[in-house]
Amino acid sequence: MKLVRFGSAGQEKPGLVDAEGQVRDLSGLVPDITGATLSSGTLDRIRQTDPATLPLAPKGQRLGACVGQVRNFIAIGLNYADHAAETGAAIPAEPIVFNKAPSCIVGPNDDVIIPRQSHKTDWEVELAIVIGERASYVAANEALEYVAGYCICNDVSEREYQLERGGTWTKGKGCPTFGPLGPWLVTKDEIPDPQNLSMWLDVNGERMQTGSTKTMIFNVAQIVSYLSHFMILEPGDVITTGTPPGVGMAMKPPRYLKPGDVVSLGIEGLGEQRQRFIAFEGKGIDTSKSWKGH
Amino acid sequence: MKLVRFGSAGQEKPGLVDAEGQVRDLSGLVPDITGATLSSGTLDRIRQTDPATLPLAPKGQRLGACVGQVRNFIAIGLNYADHAAETGAAIPAEPIVFNKAPSCIVGPNDDVIIPRQSHKTDWEVELAIVIGERASYVAANEALEYVAGYCICNDVSEREYQLERGGTWTKGKGCPTFGPLGPWLVTKDEIPDPQNLSMWLDVNGERMQTGSTKTMIFNVAQIVSYLSHFMILEPGDVITTGTPPGVGMAMKPPRYLKPGDVVSLGIEGLGEQRQRFIAFEGKGIDTSKSWKGH
Repeated sequence: MKLVRFGSAGQEKPGLVDAEGQVRDLSGLVPDITGATLSSGTLDRIRQTDPATLPLAPKGQRLGACVGQVRNFIAIGLNYADHAAETGAAIPAEPIVFNKAPSCIVGPNDDVIIPRQSHKTDWEVELAIVIGERASYVAANEALEYVAGYCICNDVSEREYQLERGGTWTKGKGCPTFGPLGPWLVTKDEIPDPQNLSMWLDVNGERMQTGSTKTMIFNVAQIVSYLSHFMILEPGDVITTGTPPGVGMAMKPPRYLKPGDVVSLGIEGLGEQRQRFIAFEGKGIDTSKSWKGH
Repeated sequence: MKLVRFGSAGQEKPGLVDAEGQVRDLSGLVPDITGATLSSGTLDRIRQTDPATLPLAPKGQRLGACVGQVRNFIAIGLNYADHAAETGAAIPAEPIVFNKAPSCIVGPNDDVIIPRQSHKTDWEVELAIVIGERASYVAANEALEYVAGYCICNDVSEREYQLERGGTWTKGKGCPTFGPLGPWLVTKDEIPDPQNLSMWLDVNGERMQTGSTKTMIFNVAQIVSYLSHFMILEPGDVITTGTPPGVGMAMKPPRYLKPGDVVSLGIEGLGEQRQRFIAFEGKGIDTSKSWKGH
């Protein structure tokens, strides 16, 4: 199944995409697509419903992030052998784990805001895992049982905040709108092999990233198993699993996003996203110098 | 006000502590103490209610974490000048930011599980900030307007996972039960100066940490302002703000927690916590060697 959330931001309704590509309204079956509705039991109940019996959603609706109320939005760093090579980093011996703020999650085609004073906003097409069942100390060979499905994540990153501001990567990964998720949450039965999906990302129509989940250093099952030994994974948690080569930071010279740029990206079987990058327009404090004084 | 959540784990009800120290049931006013009920408007509504008109909670109830449904559980590292000195680390130029998994949050007096194969489980008494209003790009001189109140956090840490397993500190900070919060969420009107609170932590009755929020490198207002420039802070988000000297890792030789140890800790005006540390007893995979093979 391809699950979606449609409607205006903060008021999304649950839906599914039928065989004709039309969005059907699931509100009569579940209140929303969140951790509370991703257990295999609930997904089976939705699966047993004939989509033709569900009301059609109004045409042209905005899509929200395909999972709502995410609490833990985890990311794996440097997880593609070919991407690690392009950044000059060593292949990690164990997964590199960091967090994106859950407040950065937006719809797959929403505008992305380049943060105030940002000069190094970058793109990263990634396969994201959506957890369906509580997972604690699970082995890799049973780890996929805890997965509800997959979606695309653009792991938008501000490289100065990530790498030049001290401490962990957190600061450059969770800026407002830096977490487009969707268009669909594709349940795992439709993705029999998550380690053989081609993926791509374009900036203004120019191909920047081409890759495949084949070159992941740690695969989906290993990542879920590994994380479950350090923390309890809960239904609705999202784990984005790293990016293949072709990010702006690795270009010579580096290339970063400017207001007006359009990024589109896709993963085989998981659909496509398209974001317009826009300038920050609100008020804000200058954090680039002496921010302690404010 | 001192807000609490009482009852068995996962079924906590909201309450407040009256002038006699008795817990009063707030269920008639708010469904729970979460981000949805921490706005100044809702807190004022609770404040205007005479506690004597609220039913008494049954005696001897377990206290849960004083805030529920936390999404972003943020932590600041090396934020006390005297603690940075004891670990041999340089004073950070900007706050060090990492995450604790929200799934690690437990009640203030719940047992804490020493993870499977952990030999380096450590303690950290900390002042935690609970966000009351959505904060994005706020200046330090207005940052406290976005704070609902404060509570104690024991930022339990597994030092091998934190420091020896590659990447960021995340792995050693969010293990199951590593986030005791409470006993009370004390609203900010009762803590006029969060930068002058004494704090302490004992292990088996022996004083280990003695400190004051006076020696914070970045104060509460600066932390809220700073974070709000990198991510949107949402109501119910919790930020734990670093620990004063006296952690086990910094002792010579280092001293870590064993099953049966009892940790008690307190901060002036915010009450006390007490946790028994227990052995991990579930099944689990050996991640210490060749975990990729599982």
